[in-house]
Parts: sequence; C-alpha cells; structure tokens
Amino acid sequence: MARIVMKFGGTSVADLDRIRNVANRVKREVDAGNEVAVVVSAMSGVTNQLVKWCQELSPLHDAREYDTVVATGEQVTIGLLAIALQTIGVDARSWQGWQVPILTDGAHGKARVEEIKGEALIARMQAGQVPVVAGFQGIGPDNRVTTLGRGGSDLSAVAIAAAVKADRCDIYTDVDGIYTTDPRIVPRARKLPAVAYEEMLELASVGAKVLQTRSVELAMKQRVRVQVLSSFEDKPGSMVVDEDEIVEQPLVTGVAYSRDEAKVTLRRVPDKPGIAAEVFGPLSAANVNVDMIVQNLGADGTTDMTFTVGKTDLPRARDVLEKARPTIGFETVIADPEVAKISIVGIGMRSHAGVAATMFKTLAEKGINIQVISTSEIKTSVLVGAEYTELAVRALHSAYGLDAEG
Amino acid sequence: MARIVMKFGGTSVADLDRIRNVANRVKREVDAGNEVAVVVSAMSGVTNQLVKWCQELSPLHDAREYDTVVATGEQVTIGLLAIALQTIGVDARSWQGWQVPILTDGAHGKARVEEIKGEALIARMQAGQVPVVAGFQGIGPDNRVTTLGRGGSDLSAVAIAAAVKADRCDIYTDVDGIYTTDPRIVPRARKLPAVAYEEMLELASVGAKVLQTRSVELAMKQRVRVQVLSSFEDKPGSMVVDEDEIVEQPLVTGVAYSRDEAKVTLRRVPDKPGIAAEVFGPLSAANVNVDMIVQNLGADGTTDMTFTVGKTDLPRARDVLEKARPTIGFETVIADPEVAKISIVGIGMRSHAGVAATMFKTLAEKGINIQVISTSEIKTSVLVGAEYTELAVRALHSAYGLDAEG
Repeated sequence: MARIVMKFGGTSVADLDRIRNVANRVKREVDAGNEVAVVVSAMSGVTNQLVKWCQELSPLHDAREYDTVVATGEQVTIGLLAIALQTIGVDARSWQGWQVPILTDGAHGKARVEEIKGEALIARMQAGQVPVVAGFQGIGPDNRVTTLGRGGSDLSAVAIAAAVKADRCDIYTDVDGIYTTDPRIVPRARKLPAVAYEEMLELASVGAKVLQTRSVELAMKQRVRVQVLSSFEDKPGSMVVDEDEIVEQPLVTGVAYSRDEAKVTLRRVPDKPGIAAEVFGPLSAANVNVDMIVQNLGADGTTDMTFTVGKTDLPRARDVLEKARPTIGFETVIADPEVAKISIVGIGMRSHAGVAATMFKTLAEKGINIQVISTSEIKTSVLVGAEYTELAVRALHSAYGLDAEG
Repeated sequence: MARIVMKFGGTSVADLDRIRNVANRVKREVDAGNEVAVVVSAMSGVTNQLVKWCQELSPLHDAREYDTVVATGEQVTIGLLAIALQTIGVDARSWQGWQVPILTDGAHGKARVEEIKGEALIARMQAGQVPVVAGFQGIGPDNRVTTLGRGGSDLSAVAIAAAVKADRCDIYTDVDGIYTTDPRIVPRARKLPAVAYEEMLELASVGAKVLQTRSVELAMKQRVRVQVLSSFEDKPGSMVVDEDEIVEQPLVTGVAYSRDEAKVTLRRVPDKPGIAAEVFGPLSAANVNVDMIVQNLGADGTTDMTFTVGKTDLPRARDVLEKARPTIGFETVIADPEVAKISIVGIGMRSHAGVAATMFKTLAEKGINIQVISTSEIKTSVLVGAEYTELAVRALHSAYGLDAEG
C-alpha cells in the first residue's frame, strides 16, 4: 500500500471520455489498496479561451480578476472528475484551492505556494475517499483566488504530495517518460527509468519540456519522488528521484538542446575593470536574462564580449545596449539568432574527468564549430550554428553510448 | 444619491461586447453619484453546457459536485465584468458567494439563502468601489459552493439589495418591464409603471415569466423595491413595490394566462367525508402540485372531482390515481391537457365587488365556456379550452379598460 498523488494535465481531461478514462486509472490505484489524491488541470483549450477573454477586454487587466476568471477551468474539471469517480463506485470529493487551503503569496497570476494544510486531505484519504484537487490555484492573503502561472498544476501536484507525505507523485502527461534526448531527432533515444532531481533541472531548463522547472525544484527541496508517465498507455514511466536512489549512474544521462536563445557579441569593448557590470547591469535592470558568457582578449586593449539572451528578449537587449553604448564604449553589437545550445547532462560528470573532452572531439569530427562553451558541475553546454542542431545531438547521443540497442 | 443593486441576466452578458455595454450602464449610475453593486448571471448558454456535462457523466450526479461545476459560469462573468469596469475607469472588484459570504442551507442545487453578511460590501460601496457579485451561488454549512436553482440570480440580487439596504434593485432583462398582459397577444398591452408585490406574485405564478417567484416573495418580505427594465434600451422600466407606493390603483392590473396545466376529472367518486384527502393525499406524496379544484354533486350519491396539475406531472398523476383507485373508488379518470388558465389580477379587487362578474359576462359574450373557477383576494382565474386563450385574454384586456390609447 502506498500513498499516491496522481496529476493529469489538460490533454488527459480534454473531454468527458478522457475524464472517464482518468477515473478508471484512479480506480485501479484505489483497488490496488493505495491511498490516492488527484490533481487536475483545466480541460485543454479552456484556459486559453479564458485568458483570451481577459486580454480582449484589456491587455492590462487586473491580475486578481484574471485569477478569478482562469481558475474556473480547473474548478470545472474537479467537479466532473469527482462525478465520474463516484459513478464507477469510487468515493471522491472535489477541493478548490481555498478549500484545502493551498495558501500562496499575493502575487496574482504567478503566485508562490507558501503552505498547504494537508491534514484534511490526509484524513479523507485515510477514510478511503479520493480528494480531487484543482491544480494551478490557491488562495492569497487577500482571501482571493490566486493562480500559480502557466504549467502550475505540476507544481500543485508536487506541493500536495509533500503536504500529504505521499510516497510518490505521478505526473500523467502526453509523453511516456523522460528520454535520453528528443526521440523526434534521435529515434534510438531511450526512456530513462530514473533521473536525479539535479539532472532533471538541467534537462528541463535546456528544453526537455516535460516537467515545469519550479515543480522539479520543489520536488528536490521536499524530496518528493516524481514519476512522469503516459495517460494514454499503461506502462511505467520515468522516476525523478534523489541521486542516491539511482543505482547505475552513467557518465551522461541525456543530451538536450534549445533553440530559444540568440547570440549577442559586443565588438571592441574597452578592456577595463568593471566593464562586465557596465554591460550586464542595464540588461538585468531591463529583465533580460543572460545565459552563456565568454570574453576574448583583443590585441589593442579592447575585448570582444559574447553572450546569449532569450530570442524573445533580443530586441529589448539591443535597445538597452545601444542606450548604454556611451557608457560602455563598444564599437558594434552583432546579434545572431541562428544558434542552438547543445547540452550533455549527467551527475556522473562530477566524478569523472574527460567527459567534456569527448563532446568537443565528437563535434570537431563532424566539422561543427563551437561558438561558446559553458559548464556546470553536471552539465556542459556549447553554442553551435542552429543548422547543426540535429547532427550534433545525434553524434553526441552515440558518442556517450546512449543509443538503444537493435 | 441612491444605493442601487443592478442585476444582469445571461443574455445581457452573453459576449464581451455585451459585457462592455453592461459596464457602461454601471458607469452611468456611478457617474450620477450613486453607490452601486452589480449581480450577474453566467454568459448565456454556459450554464446549460455545464449542466449537460454533469448529466452526461451521470444522470444521478452528486449535487455538491454539480454545484462546484455550474457555479463557475458566474465566476467567469464577475471577473470579466470587473475588468471591463476597471478599463473604463470604474473601481470594481469581483465577489464569489463564499467571499461575501452568502450563507445558504445545505440543499445543494436548490439552496436557500439564510444570511448575507452585507458589511464588507457596504464598506466597499461607501469607499466608491463597485462590488460585482456572482449570482445564483452561495456557500453551505459544509464550506462548499451551493447554487440556488435555476433563475436564482434574481434571488441573489434581491437578497443582496436587502443585505446592503439598497434603495432599489434594478433587474435588467430582455423585456423592458411588466405589461398589463402579453404584448404578443395584445399589441395594445401597456407597460405598468408600478405593480404591487402581491400582484407580481400572482402574475409570476400564472405565467408572466419576468421575475422568478422566490425573488418576488423575498422582495415583499424584505420590502426591497425592485425595478424590471431592459438591458438593451435606455428607458425606465416597471417598479415592483409595496402597494402603499402605488397612487392609482386600477381594479384590474393585468391579465395573465398559463398553458402549463392540464385538467383531470375523476368521474363518479363516492360522495363521503374524507374523500378529498384520499384523492389529494397520494398526489401530494408523489410531489404532484394540484391547483384549481372543483367538486360537483351528482344525483346518485357520487360526485365528479375536477382539478388541474402541471402538464409535465400529468403522467405521474394518472399513475398515482390509478394505483389509488381501489381506495378512492372512482369510475374513470379523464385527463385534458388542452386547457388554459386565464387570470385577472389586481389589488383593487379587494375593495370592489363585481369585478369577477365582469369577467364571466365578458367570456360568455364571446361564447367561451368556463370549465373551472378559482379565486383569491386579488385574483380570479378561470379554466377554458386552450384554443380560446388569445380570444379570452384580448376580450378581458379590453373589458377592464387596459388597452393603450391610439
């Protein structure tokens, strides 16, 4: 017997048939003797419609009223799923965020969960009832409904799993697990039985969009064991767990890529102390996130600075830099959106040298020029021309022995 | 300056343009220096869709979950209207039933309002803010959302008007007021400037479907002055008020009709004490409402009993009566759904004799046979063949001098 939180996203509850399907999955866990709570998103498409209405009325709509409107999506799903469960003989009851309560801060539209009172839910689960909890929502200090920002239902599920001390938080989605890389690029990508929290964070942030980053951070902090699995197939998914739980730790767990960044180069920046602050201070003030940074020393007391920003932030970044040009004193800004960031991720990298060298050698053999390199304890990322994305991912996937057999 | 509650139904908030239109109407009252609270229904069609989903999942769905689902309709509207009001510079804030709070009993799906804490709303109104309150919903003793039953938004509006001690409760609808009779039958029907609560109750119950009956009862009990007016035109409507407020009291205020009833006749019932209880007891136990009743003495110690029931209740009524036939001992049941109830209503009838006589004489002159008669202090109703409905209504409307000039 285990205590399980099951989370179903919008595509899994898109219509009444799928809601019935979800109810059957929940019943199976209950029949197996488990204590179960369910967290659901809005039926797919519903939230977009509600957001669109708010934006049509006013692009600058009040976030508190936005929350009142969009939180209804999940409210509909919890009621319908509770009815579907009752209909097949499962004792169930819906819970809105304010009923649990899921206490958040007052940042409407992107609130942070501060505390979940799990006692009532635990009591119901122990009595054999299945709480069906609205994801993505909570209640703020102003006694008004808050929402957690897009994708927030994953966060709700992990937070509730922590609050009810669940043995496992199962995130049902439209993929069946976490892969060594994108199977659309590498058909021989393998599903990973287990991934460490730290690896998942790196994979999520570089483009493996399976779990929302904040939910992985919370799972790591609260030590919630998360499983990612398919709501349409009936087979085990991938566990996201503490690294101690992972018996076999490969050097590289996965190869990720992101085409969401653009490269910015400042030519002939004066090479003087404090110059980095003069460049990155104004960008930070304008809410432009800077990722990879390299600085090359020039011959004449100037330097070239290269870094990446999100593609959508590029116009703003150029604008900020042009305005700061008199202070910084560079010659030109060169922007290149045609780049891709390729990353190898693995906790095994901590204890093994030479992992990055294999990456550089593999790319060189394929004639792929590396524009920027950045490293962390468990990740090495390189920036390459966007047209090399698939080639680089495939070559690295093979080089690190990740290809499936046969 | 007055304190006003404005209520808008589903067709008045059916899309974003109409919501903007409602916002403009509210702004006009605010700009005129009034304190305003607004009560709204769900966008038209939305509640039906939500109800359909619940019924498709299970015809015997849990009323608590049904309430969770259908209450979202109003929640969407309050958020959108609050945004629309803010956009045109009106300080506004949405309120769900549990936030006010609107306390109801626990009869989910058809809850009764028990108490509304008006203090918070009054404070906001006095501070110049417009509360936008979700109609049709409240919160039950189980800390769960309740709904008041279909048409319950009128009831919400009147209850809130009472709670905030409003000078007036304006019910915006798709008709522009209360008429002396149905203008589709009598083009010369006149809009009434004012109607007494008691009259409105009789008019509502006999088929003038402008205001939900429970909301009129509550308005009468709490002495809330209600105005019925059009949300699409800009002119005064009809006031529903205490009869003392009505200066000119005509003998007959209006002529109403209903084709929702069927006539049932029991032939040759034994004429003995207690026979009425034997007939109407089982009907009442089966939740069949009986309206007009007459009993004719026969020649041979038997009697014929005639009464009306709602047309939709007719199959159930026949079933109940057939089962009780051994006890009651009648010969046959004759059912006739082709009847109409025509009523004249007016508080002036209290103090004037001969009003009903004019009715009978008028109908006789048109050759219309009266099948059943029932009277109350301010109403006289007759049952006639359904094909005479329009003829009877027109003749009576003229006979009581209700036709508009010109």
